[in-house]
Amino acid sequence: MSAVEDRLSELGLTVPEVVPPVAAYVPVLREGDLVFTSGQLPMVDGSLAATGKVGAQVDAETAKSLAETCALNAIAAIKSEVGDLDTVSRVVKVVGFVASDPGFTGQPGVINGASELLVKAFGDKGIHARSAVGVSALPLDAPVEVEVIVSVAR
Amino acid sequence: MSAVEDRLSELGLTVPEVVPPVAAYVPVLREGDLVFTSGQLPMVDGSLAATGKVGAQVDAETAKSLAETCALNAIAAIKSEVGDLDTVSRVVKVVGFVASDPGFTGQPGVINGASELLVKAFGDKGIHARSAVGVSALPLDAPVEVEVIVSVAR
Amino acid sequence: MSAVEDRLSELGLTVPEVVPPVAAYVPVLREGDLVFTSGQLPMVDGSLAATGKVGAQVDAETAKSLAETCALNAIAAIKSEVGDLDTVSRVVKVVGFVASDPGFTGQPGVINGASELLVKAFGDKGIHARSAVGVSALPLDAPVEVEVIVSVAR
Repeated sequence: MSAVEDRLSELGLTVPEVVPPVAAYVPVLREGDLVFTSGQLPMVDGSLAATGKVGAQVDAETAKSLAETCALNAIAAIKSEVGDLDTVSRVVKVVGFVASDPGFTGQPGVINGASELLVKAFGDKGIHARSAVGVSALPLDAPVEVEVIVSVAR
Repeated sequence: MSAVEDRLSELGLTVPEVVPPVAAYVPVLREGDLVFTSGQLPMVDGSLAATGKVGAQVDAETAKSLAETCALNAIAAIKSEVGDLDTVSRVVKVVGFVASDPGFTGQPGVINGASELLVKAFGDKGIHARSAVGVSALPLDAPVEVEVIVSVAR
Repeated sequence: MSAVEDRLSELGLTVPEVVPPVAAYVPVLREGDLVFTSGQLPMVDGSLAATGKVGAQVDAETAKSLAETCALNAIAAIKSEVGDLDTVSRVVKVVGFVASDPGFTGQPGVINGASELLVKAFGDKGIHARSAVGVSALPLDAPVEVEVIVSVAR
């Protein structure tokens, strides 16, 4: 088991099965040294862990936890491509989309759920550049969607 | 004519002229092995094929067709950069933005219009990673915007 | 001082201090020849220059000026990574997010504030691919957020 998975295990987390795409694409793709995940939804055992807009039906704390789930699914997608997660040399970029009531502006705190998990899992290699935005709606009424780019050792 | 264009032709489609940017940028740019398109709107002969929000003024089926038009415009932009579309080694990443009524959560089905065309055009090399999100508004009141990253043979 | 900073100086602009991230990430990251900024908000001296939605509390002209501020902050982030801004070989990609009233569809004009500054600063090397979208809300109620990818000489 990789050191990354050891660290997740200490948090009580295991890398899940890859979430099958909800449409005509693949969950992850490697191009050269970069690995791009598709946008990951907070799916657990094949269903969304919650639905609705953050700031309305979903509160910020719950949404932060859902962003962590998105990141865990991203790690699963990356593992399916690279095999050994310890070959990830850097988490490069995260984009976090938060389905937001127009009055909700706490997207950074929500997406921290993803960012903090990536740092816990990958250590210093997990620190990344990031954008967080509030969108009007997400697939299947998911509250959060997270995509990740990582690099792998040359 | 490239094999890619042959396949499009069998679908009754031709690669259009590149859509001029609506502002201060270029429609496509190559950096190393990667080619990045700008966000493509569903322009046909210089005008938007439709306007409005999906789930309100525009239905999902129409929006899927508009996403196909966005992808065709992306292919035009890529062709203007690479010349021969058969030099595309992989469609890497698609981001699809759907101008969505807050109650509309069928973004994956809409963006399939783009994803499926890319697979029809490029074959196995057309299968990509993807994010689809619902946004509050798009340029010129376009219902859909699609950006694409492809790689070209080294 | 770099030629880039000379050009900004002629516009009465100086590269500010890097804006500290509002959450668990870094403002900029280099991976190979590419430098990715995080999403930049229109912060001036530690505070947002304005808040609200474009098309409602914020007008398009003000928003364009805010997008310029975002781009200036992106330049600051890039400088903190590369040192000499003249080593930037190309501005590759800009994504501009505009917190938009659903009826506001002038995102391209707003994000021109960023695009035009990048061209003024970097000259021909500043011309880039771009997407501009209208989102429902942005961090801290910022009206605009801009992320930038540049390449550096090999």
